Amino acid sequence: MKILGIDPGSRVTGYGLVEHHGNSTRYLDSGCIRLPDKWKLADKLVQISNELGALIENNRPDCASIEQIFFAHNARSALILGHVRGVILLKMAETGLPIHEYPPLQVKQAVVGVGRATKDQVIHMVQILLNKRQDFKEDEADALASAITHAHLHPTLERMQGKG
Amino acid sequence: MKILGIDPGSRVTGYGLVEHHGNSTRYLDSGCIRLPDKWKLADKLVQISNELGALIENNRPDCASIEQIFFAHNARSALILGHVRGVILLKMAETGLPIHEYPPLQVKQAVVGVGRATKDQVIHMVQILLNKRQDFKEDEADALASAITHAHLHPTLERMQGKG
Repeated sequence: MKILGIDPGSRVTGYGLVEHHGNSTRYLDSGCIRLPDKWKLADKLVQISNELGALIENNRPDCASIEQIFFAHNARSALILGHVRGVILLKMAETGLPIHEYPPLQVKQAVVGVGRATKDQVIHMVQILLNKRQDFKEDEADALASAITHAHLHPTLERMQGKG
Repeated sequence: MKILGIDPGSRVTGYGLVEHHGNSTRYLDSGCIRLPDKWKLADKLVQISNELGALIENNRPDCASIEQIFFAHNARSALILGHVRGVILLKMAETGLPIHEYPPLQVKQAVVGVGRATKDQVIHMVQILLNKRQDFKEDEADALASAITHAHLHPTLERMQGKG
């Protein structure tokens, strides 16, 4: 199963692709989609929609994993982040990708083992879990963490739903 | 010039179409796109994207007018509203529609004459300005108000930019 993890941001959106079979989760690719500060918001949204579309088209993931967000630092940043996240969910749904959402605490729990973890801890554990000593950017590591979370929780969820 | 006004909402998005020539602004159409509460957010976003796409396709407006939003009541509602607004801006940009954004105070100023106006005052003045005694819904009236604002301010803006 190929999982696309996405960490949406108003300036930088991280993505990470992993392949999961049995008990093994393998790193495939990751990176960041950057949106130039000076661009109009609508142009940024077209850009992220196109780049995400190309990612999905080129890699054909089986599903997507993204953090649920319940709050943000303030209403203004929540609004801009919402614009980006809305376009991402739209593109995933339009391309028929099943979307799995996990609360941030659950992602940290799955990757670091505790609900409260620093950014560095997340990066470190993503490197270890994927056996990939790459200097991941924060957003990239968060996207991979979302993908890993789904890889780890998916079998449990399926068993609970009687599919396993 | 045919103007599409949009009032984005997490549950109901209003739209309004007006035709503006010289000093006259004529009502063409208006309505609401409703998103069923029980739907998943991603499915709601696909729905609004499709309905807005059909509206643009069927009516071929020359430009779009939408309220700028700087804040919302709280971060959670800002986040959801942001998702919807992001998808709307994306669809407008993808279909090549020039997007004009006006602060809410400026819209009320243009339609009611004062920056602070009740919902009923907006509905009432939209009826008068468009010479259309229709029982407009709030979101519909707000969308028409955005379109009227652009109709009224557009010639001034063009003159200021030396195009008039």
